[in-house]
Amino acid sequence: MKAKVHITLKNGVLDPQGKAVQHALGSLGFSGVNDVRQGKFIELDLTETDPAKAREAVEQMCKNLLANTVIENYTIDLTD
Amino acid sequence: MKAKVHITLKNGVLDPQGKAVQHALGSLGFSGVNDVRQGKFIELDLTETDPAKAREAVEQMCKNLLANTVIENYTIDLTD
Repeated sequence: MKAKVHITLKNGVLDPQGKAVQHALGSLGFSGVNDVRQGKFIELDLTETDPAKAREAVEQMCKNLLANTVIENYTIDLTD
Repeated sequence: MKAKVHITLKNGVLDPQGKAVQHALGSLGFSGVNDVRQGKFIELDLTETDPAKAREAVEQMCKNLLANTVIENYTIDLTD
């Protein structure tokens, strides 16, 4: 079973990396970019086959290691 | 119009960051993690309202700045 995890900064948290990308896009001549937010995308390949147990495990991984839940949100998508 | 861009390493390209996460998960007691691949997730807020033009613009951004197309793939999802 595969899990796709998106980790994004919470609204209101400053994103200097996103701002740098936005600025660089402007410098390269791309106009009309109002905002850029950069997050992480993690793909996990799990031996667990039960979706409920897999989700539970990935939730724990996010809380303990993958995401900083003070400033970041995470979403989990499971696929076979 | 919003664009969500996923940037992932191509198959076969070594992912040391993913391996480090996999190892750390193992150390924390999470077993059954066969593989971890880490990529980037970028959300762009564009003034462009035409989907075709927006996709074209984001493709160019990916090729010129966001992705290293030698070792990375990108996918673009547009939403209103």
